[in-house]
Amino acid sequence: MPKTPVIALLGGGQLGRMFIENALRYDVTVHVLDPDPHCSCAGIAHRFVQGRFDDRDTVLAFAREADVVGIEIEHVSVEALEELERMGKRVIPSAATLRTIKDKGLQKAFYRDHGIPTSDFALITGREGIADHPHLLPAFLKLREGGYDGRGVMPIASVADAANGFDGPCVLEQRVQVAKELAVIAVLHADGSCASYDPVEMVFDPELNLVDVLVAPADVPADRIVEAQELAKRVARAFAAPGIYAVEMFLSSDGELLVNETAPRAHNSGHHTIEACHSSQYDQLLRLYMDWPMGDTRLRSTAAMVNLIGEGGTGTPVLEGADALLARPGAYVHLYGKAETRTGRKMGHVTLVAPDRTTLDTMIEAVRGHLRVVPATTEPSTTN
Amino acid sequence: MPKTPVIALLGGGQLGRMFIENALRYDVTVHVLDPDPHCSCAGIAHRFVQGRFDDRDTVLAFAREADVVGIEIEHVSVEALEELERMGKRVIPSAATLRTIKDKGLQKAFYRDHGIPTSDFALITGREGIADHPHLLPAFLKLREGGYDGRGVMPIASVADAANGFDGPCVLEQRVQVAKELAVIAVLHADGSCASYDPVEMVFDPELNLVDVLVAPADVPADRIVEAQELAKRVARAFAAPGIYAVEMFLSSDGELLVNETAPRAHNSGHHTIEACHSSQYDQLLRLYMDWPMGDTRLRSTAAMVNLIGEGGTGTPVLEGADALLARPGAYVHLYGKAETRTGRKMGHVTLVAPDRTTLDTMIEAVRGHLRVVPATTEPSTTN
Repeated sequence: MPKTPVIALLGGGQLGRMFIENALRYDVTVHVLDPDPHCSCAGIAHRFVQGRFDDRDTVLAFAREADVVGIEIEHVSVEALEELERMGKRVIPSAATLRTIKDKGLQKAFYRDHGIPTSDFALITGREGIADHPHLLPAFLKLREGGYDGRGVMPIASVADAANGFDGPCVLEQRVQVAKELAVIAVLHADGSCASYDPVEMVFDPELNLVDVLVAPADVPADRIVEAQELAKRVARAFAAPGIYAVEMFLSSDGELLVNETAPRAHNSGHHTIEACHSSQYDQLLRLYMDWPMGDTRLRSTAAMVNLIGEGGTGTPVLEGADALLARPGAYVHLYGKAETRTGRKMGHVTLVAPDRTTLDTMIEAVRGHLRVVPATTEPSTTN
Repeated sequence: MPKTPVIALLGGGQLGRMFIENALRYDVTVHVLDPDPHCSCAGIAHRFVQGRFDDRDTVLAFAREADVVGIEIEHVSVEALEELERMGKRVIPSAATLRTIKDKGLQKAFYRDHGIPTSDFALITGREGIADHPHLLPAFLKLREGGYDGRGVMPIASVADAANGFDGPCVLEQRVQVAKELAVIAVLHADGSCASYDPVEMVFDPELNLVDVLVAPADVPADRIVEAQELAKRVARAFAAPGIYAVEMFLSSDGELLVNETAPRAHNSGHHTIEACHSSQYDQLLRLYMDWPMGDTRLRSTAAMVNLIGEGGTGTPVLEGADALLARPGAYVHLYGKAETRTGRKMGHVTLVAPDRTTLDTMIEAVRGHLRVVPATTEPSTTN
């Protein structure tokens, strides 16, 4: 069919922006729906529609003419996706996958039901249920729905903490003694072919609870690399629908690999694949949408990704230290085009590629020490 | 200055499209002017203006609010660029550079005046001048202005051919016995820093006179690589204005490197730099526009670029054989989003990266044998 295929994307943040960057290589059309008229994709989508992606009718009206429907955030209307599937559109991830994943309780039960290793847990209807599961403590209490980027999660050290817990349907997850946090992106195609990227190792910012730095490949023994990749592929195959699955996992201090959670979309842990792999996670997503063959997931070199998180308050973003970074071979700056920086907001990232880990570590330190996104001290000038 | 800088680009073809693909990584705004409302950039520029880039007033109105003015085709109004320079805008290439390069006669004289090796030539006012320069025959007769992609060039074997020659101001260039055609892209910054990419070796399609395949690095001895790079940098420094200079050169059969012509812009011979180099030619251009530091020009691996040229007539383009190519590691498809294919029209390209030249050659043959852009046999369906 010679018509340029239309991909309707629910959500217009940075993941959508990087998807579009790659998609421009091909003759495809990308439409984006987002409530924020200043979102990262607003100016660059072939068609931008301002509207709520969690509203069934808005999504249906937006995606009516599309061939493919994708997401770049989980908080979208699953009812709309179900309806779009019934209309015969290719929906990735599937509505069923998203329904399971959006509910952290269903997600944990899904792992258990499919024999996928995950930390012990209980589903409770409110904080009063914590006392029924003392063997799970110390634990994390997670709201089953609506959490994001560290919101909706709190530590519960003892039954005494329960009084301050969320009062609603929650998962109570036994706390794992974590040696390392890994993430592996697996890709599953409609024909059953399945591949995975190399595991990355994540370092969290304890204050902001945001991924701060990640390194690829993870610094674990070779058999662990393979084991983590196989586990991610098992998760993808369990969902049994074409998609990209970013599987976050713990390597526990007693040597177990446990799945923490999965995002059925492009993910922060795969940004480095743009420069470090032949086919990036965004390219894989496009291949999935278009039913093209699987891309090459191999690493071309050691790589790191450093998030650029807003500091120093709210305002027009300014990137300090960019010149020194841009002069450095193997450093790639990505800014997400957000109109406003806020303390803790993801404003961009830097990918670093290096011939070896030692060089990489030196580069990471240079970026963390010298690069900051801060609000402008003066108001933006206007031209006319 | 916190305001997002505005780059005004004259021309909205594939070079502009690839420029925008990379520029989306940063927080910059790109406006595009092109007469064709269906050009490659029309749907993806932050602002697209339909209009003639060779019309002074149109260009001035278009670029009035821009911080930087760039080109992606030479046939733009130099008068407008001069005026924009007087208004204090950063214009790359400079109006003076473009004035010299647009006139193939001035360009040849420029090389001679700067001691840059180039084939012997004469400037003539019409075909009757050919007889005055029998020592230059066999030669190429080139219209001084307006030629593009092989148009405006004809071979003159003997004085007898003169009767069929162009009747207007021309350059008569002695024909060089060409061993290889090379191209080197040099980058010159305002601070005087100058770098070059590896030389590429070009293979022309004799029927269409379009660059068909290029390979990087060129298969010449190491000292020749350096010599070609130095020559390209000499050309850039001679123009003495910030810019990207794609220098096409001949390696003659008696071992001389001779400059053929220079394009002061991103160039077909640098497409492979997107995947094969840390900083692509498009990234360098952005760095120039923004006065950011020079990027890393080194090759990450051996690479080839194969143009996808329309075959079989006019119509809605269809890429045949894409699936087999996309399944191949190290192959990157680029389609330029042109609404109509025509025999001989550049519709896209494929970049191939490989660990060694032998593997690369196998990949090149696979692409040339199996990938074609042809018109759709049925009319495109419309959705409503």
